[in-house]
Amino acid sequence: MSDWMDTNTGQFNYTGLEQSIKTKGGMFYVPWDLLATNIKKAQDYIKENTTLGIPAIVQTELVHKMGKVIAQEARALGVTQVFAPVIDLARELRYGRVEETFSEDLYLAGEIGYQYVTGLQSLNVSAMVKHFAGFSLPEQGLNTGPVQGGERYLRTTWLPSFKRAIVDGGVWSIMSAYHSYDGIPAVADEHLLTDILRKEWGYEYFVISDAGATDRLCNAFHLCQSSPLDMDAVTLMALPAGNDVEMGGGSYNFQKIPDLVNSGKLDMKIVDTAVSRVLRAKFAMGLFENPSPGAPPEEWGNLIHTKESVDIARQLDKESIVLLENHRNILPLKKSGDIAVIGPMAHGFMNYGDYVPYRSQYRGVTPLDGIKAAVNTSARVQYAKGCERWSNDQSGFAEAIDVAKKSDVAIVVVGTWSRDQNELWQGLNATTGEHVDVDDLSLVGAQSALVRAIIATGVPTIVVLSSGKPITEPWLSKSASALVQQFYPSEEGGSALADVLFGDYNPSGRLSVSFPHSVGDLPIYYDYMNSGRSIGNSGSIGENGALVFGHQYVLGSPTPWYPFGYGLSYSDFEYGQVTLDKQTVSAKDTVMVSVDVKNIQGQDGAEVVQVYVVDEISSVTVPNRSLKGFEKVFIHAGETKTVKIQLRVEDLGLWNSRMKYVVEKGSFQVLVGRSSADIRGKATFQVQ
Amino acid sequence: MSDWMDTNTGQFNYTGLEQSIKTKGGMFYVPWDLLATNIKKAQDYIKENTTLGIPAIVQTELVHKMGKVIAQEARALGVTQVFAPVIDLARELRYGRVEETFSEDLYLAGEIGYQYVTGLQSLNVSAMVKHFAGFSLPEQGLNTGPVQGGERYLRTTWLPSFKRAIVDGGVWSIMSAYHSYDGIPAVADEHLLTDILRKEWGYEYFVISDAGATDRLCNAFHLCQSSPLDMDAVTLMALPAGNDVEMGGGSYNFQKIPDLVNSGKLDMKIVDTAVSRVLRAKFAMGLFENPSPGAPPEEWGNLIHTKESVDIARQLDKESIVLLENHRNILPLKKSGDIAVIGPMAHGFMNYGDYVPYRSQYRGVTPLDGIKAAVNTSARVQYAKGCERWSNDQSGFAEAIDVAKKSDVAIVVVGTWSRDQNELWQGLNATTGEHVDVDDLSLVGAQSALVRAIIATGVPTIVVLSSGKPITEPWLSKSASALVQQFYPSEEGGSALADVLFGDYNPSGRLSVSFPHSVGDLPIYYDYMNSGRSIGNSGSIGENGALVFGHQYVLGSPTPWYPFGYGLSYSDFEYGQVTLDKQTVSAKDTVMVSVDVKNIQGQDGAEVVQVYVVDEISSVTVPNRSLKGFEKVFIHAGETKTVKIQLRVEDLGLWNSRMKYVVEKGSFQVLVGRSSADIRGKATFQVQ
Repeated sequence: MSDWMDTNTGQFNYTGLEQSIKTKGGMFYVPWDLLATNIKKAQDYIKENTTLGIPAIVQTELVHKMGKVIAQEARALGVTQVFAPVIDLARELRYGRVEETFSEDLYLAGEIGYQYVTGLQSLNVSAMVKHFAGFSLPEQGLNTGPVQGGERYLRTTWLPSFKRAIVDGGVWSIMSAYHSYDGIPAVADEHLLTDILRKEWGYEYFVISDAGATDRLCNAFHLCQSSPLDMDAVTLMALPAGNDVEMGGGSYNFQKIPDLVNSGKLDMKIVDTAVSRVLRAKFAMGLFENPSPGAPPEEWGNLIHTKESVDIARQLDKESIVLLENHRNILPLKKSGDIAVIGPMAHGFMNYGDYVPYRSQYRGVTPLDGIKAAVNTSARVQYAKGCERWSNDQSGFAEAIDVAKKSDVAIVVVGTWSRDQNELWQGLNATTGEHVDVDDLSLVGAQSALVRAIIATGVPTIVVLSSGKPITEPWLSKSASALVQQFYPSEEGGSALADVLFGDYNPSGRLSVSFPHSVGDLPIYYDYMNSGRSIGNSGSIGENGALVFGHQYVLGSPTPWYPFGYGLSYSDFEYGQVTLDKQTVSAKDTVMVSVDVKNIQGQDGAEVVQVYVVDEISSVTVPNRSLKGFEKVFIHAGETKTVKIQLRVEDLGLWNSRMKYVVEKGSFQVLVGRSSADIRGKATFQVQ
Repeated sequence: MSDWMDTNTGQFNYTGLEQSIKTKGGMFYVPWDLLATNIKKAQDYIKENTTLGIPAIVQTELVHKMGKVIAQEARALGVTQVFAPVIDLARELRYGRVEETFSEDLYLAGEIGYQYVTGLQSLNVSAMVKHFAGFSLPEQGLNTGPVQGGERYLRTTWLPSFKRAIVDGGVWSIMSAYHSYDGIPAVADEHLLTDILRKEWGYEYFVISDAGATDRLCNAFHLCQSSPLDMDAVTLMALPAGNDVEMGGGSYNFQKIPDLVNSGKLDMKIVDTAVSRVLRAKFAMGLFENPSPGAPPEEWGNLIHTKESVDIARQLDKESIVLLENHRNILPLKKSGDIAVIGPMAHGFMNYGDYVPYRSQYRGVTPLDGIKAAVNTSARVQYAKGCERWSNDQSGFAEAIDVAKKSDVAIVVVGTWSRDQNELWQGLNATTGEHVDVDDLSLVGAQSALVRAIIATGVPTIVVLSSGKPITEPWLSKSASALVQQFYPSEEGGSALADVLFGDYNPSGRLSVSFPHSVGDLPIYYDYMNSGRSIGNSGSIGENGALVFGHQYVLGSPTPWYPFGYGLSYSDFEYGQVTLDKQTVSAKDTVMVSVDVKNIQGQDGAEVVQVYVVDEISSVTVPNRSLKGFEKVFIHAGETKTVKIQLRVEDLGLWNSRMKYVVEKGSFQVLVGRSSADIRGKATFQVQ
């Protein structure tokens, strides 16, 4: 039962509405699953707004389109604000909410966030960027845990994606985070919410706390009495610091504002400022002109779950699939013959992540569905689950092995999974999602053994990792005939997977997150600071148990299993020389990076050209390299295209010893390549 | 070949000496192993000065005595400064140098550091506290890696142990660290080396860089050109920041000082300041009165490796052993009957750590030696290695199983190991030590399987973990009959182990570091910040493979396997009510905590009473609890002693939102217990 609406029946409660307006700031959360109860056709697409998961590097204009589709559907339903995008970084892979992030990389997360925001807001649906800021590196990987970091790290690594979406994207709302950063809870961090966000960045709209986050000032951080909760103290810490609005899920401490003003403990100017920020957002959203943008039900068919929207979803899905290995070009597969589909992640539910409507994971195109729909009528597709995803029971192996042996090829789908929040809170098993954190990134249960058993049949085995975060099974690289990574898809996930497996789409996705060999290697992001990942020889444990002793690590490697930006294609691309339009620039210039890329083999395909910049000498320690531009370019077989990517020199600065942002004079090296580790060309320019 | 001494022959080189004085600041490193070549009797004890390793909580006056013995031996050899103590914290267990630290806890590391410093310096041998500061949390656990942290974290967690040893201990030299903290390399961190160390703390002596550390400004941090190395830039970054002296192992950049002064790039006052700090230390050490404190060789026998010193070493060793499990009181063992000693860590070398004289690990009392010497003449002790520590080969298991089956009890010694730096640099296998980092904390090779095989014989099995860091084999808790932790000992390690196993010493050691269940659970220190380790239900994987799904973690637990402060005794202790001498205090007061402790059972024994303080409500996030006092007290069987531990209220402050140190008003809870997790009594006082 929400204040203003019966969450079982959907009936309005006008008394509750009045009360809510009076005490809770005039914003109402509409649960998607409730809408969905009434609006069946909406369900299948709405999940898009929270389940992009970790995408590969996709064309950002596609993300813009996605945002626009979400906005169109939201508006049709009368919804004018969504709790997206999440532009936190995937830097603590044990953390369950990694599945909600776009990337480990600040530039990529910023670009996707920017496009998502502008796409949504182009139709006057407010985005809400979250979680501000420096949130997704919780200690021990545990949900809402404290984050340790300095101001330079905050500004260098955690703030740029937010600045891009907030300042450049012009977002109308921001959600503050649950955590503390260097001992200061984000909801009461005046330095962050006021000094940086408002004074430095000029953000004029409002900041809202996450569900129950303000209560945590007392009951988690112990900055105030928690039993009974000191609502006055919470309000006096959060509101003046710049957290203008409280979300539900807690005590609605801001009810105390009138009393606090009346008693002189809270300056009315602070309240006015917060209110003005909310009103400014509502004006920007056009709510005063059009407070009820919802379309009449008879028009929903033209606005919600349209063919165009579903096509965009499938396009997003197939561009997001990453081909990790393809030995002897086993992929793409023929659409004929006997095909075994195996594994608990291949059928029975969709792998969407947790912020989805109740039971929506049971609707959509599964890998098995997609494969069946893609093959010729002459083909025979047989499915065997092999094992449950949540068990070590191997009693289903025999059937799976039998199915594999009778087939020309086996496609085994294994991975991690989440559930809708209702199922999660019921305690049903899951391996990712909010408040579902892991201390091991390997496949759970019998899944790894199942893959080994199928490979051991000698039948060529395509392994598909379907997951919300990197999985650590490095032995797969050599043992599987092909290895495919599919992060959370839309309802079209199975179709997209089949598009890639059978060659209707030439894979072009790239990893937006580095894969470690083992949980013990974390953190594994590519842009470690200079002096980091400085290693001696690496050791290893052979498949036969032979130990090769190294120093860093003794029996492992701190380098990634697959690096950020990695991904194969059915085509092969050759890079020409990298040229720059200027060799000497000032901080206000741009530099155009050009490189010829030739599709030298096979079929037409798309290449993601990546530009990393190295600040060769800096006054403080900076990342060893940073992504500063990329372009996905479609190139016909045999064709050469000149790819031009523009760098803004003012984006190449650092936070110096006096914590001033400066672009320093000196050499900058431009690395152009297929991944953060596969650099195909270099050039250098000087900032003077 | 060092500048002033032939490292092969020990011959002086007077030209080199002059050159060294002229360009390198007048300090000379004397390698212990070279001294040892000439001075046989010195070898066996000298290792003490660097191989305390991670000790358990021992009486701090014993550490003071240890420092004094080291100083006595050093002076006898003419050595007036030692590179100890290391007071970094054991907060990144993958890191190879964890073996050199005293504790994860800042208070304990500070107390041990303080006693070590004052013990050394009481005989005018200069201590050198290191590595200043915030060093031992390198990213990925990799040696010399960057550390991320804010100023509040630095002051709250990393600086207190240093302040205790530097300010209270009056140390005469400090070694700066290899790493960068929030992007600023420690050797050039003016805020740390000047603002905090000199201006706030008033430290008047010198800071020296670690070997080669200044070169890293160019070749690791890339703050200057590295090829050729920009020696001017290094000098101009390090010296004015407050790093007064360079150690060897690099380029001796400070040779450039005269040129830089002459060319006006470096102010002579900065040089004078650095020189004055060195001279002040030399005056304090009495070097001007007695520049050659070495004793004539005929007196060495009275000063070096004396019986008293060896006794202190054995005392330190036995007090440092921690009894983790003792099912059905299997320990102490009888000194008769058939005893199997098994395992690659039981004999053949000493487990000292890496900073020891060349091949010294092959001298000392091994566990097997100690056990053989302890038992009655009627006893039969049989040894079987079972496996090599560095292999998965199980061909030796049969012999070990056979020996076990013929015995009344089996003592299996397994663990981690390091080697002297010569062997490490030769590339010989090791699992801990400087530049020997791991991504897994489980037993290496066949060791775990060996323990399982011996336990499976049904013969009562005592497992001894001999290691430089926590090992993660949680199944041992229930499966072994008893479980004993021995961190790096002195040459008397095997004797001390036998003292404990056979009951000549009732174990009293406590863990100075928390043990995780798995490497994926790091960091595991007990004093996580409020809001940390906030967990839902924990999951598990049964021995039979049954999966019990939880949320945090899905199949594991973020709580420690064994918590900080934990350790059993052959006695059992009962705690009375905790009382305080005051209920209301000011920031300048002290609070006396009193508790009656009764030895209720068994034999005489020592108990370590631990006092943790909880700041109930604070203005910024603080640790959930902090050790603020402890006392090891010997109590006869049946006797009750009143233990009194004094708290200084001024030590209970925090670094507030304006980064000022304040003791805040309000409630402080005093927790008294046997470990950080086993609290036996509480009391509360108010600061007004």
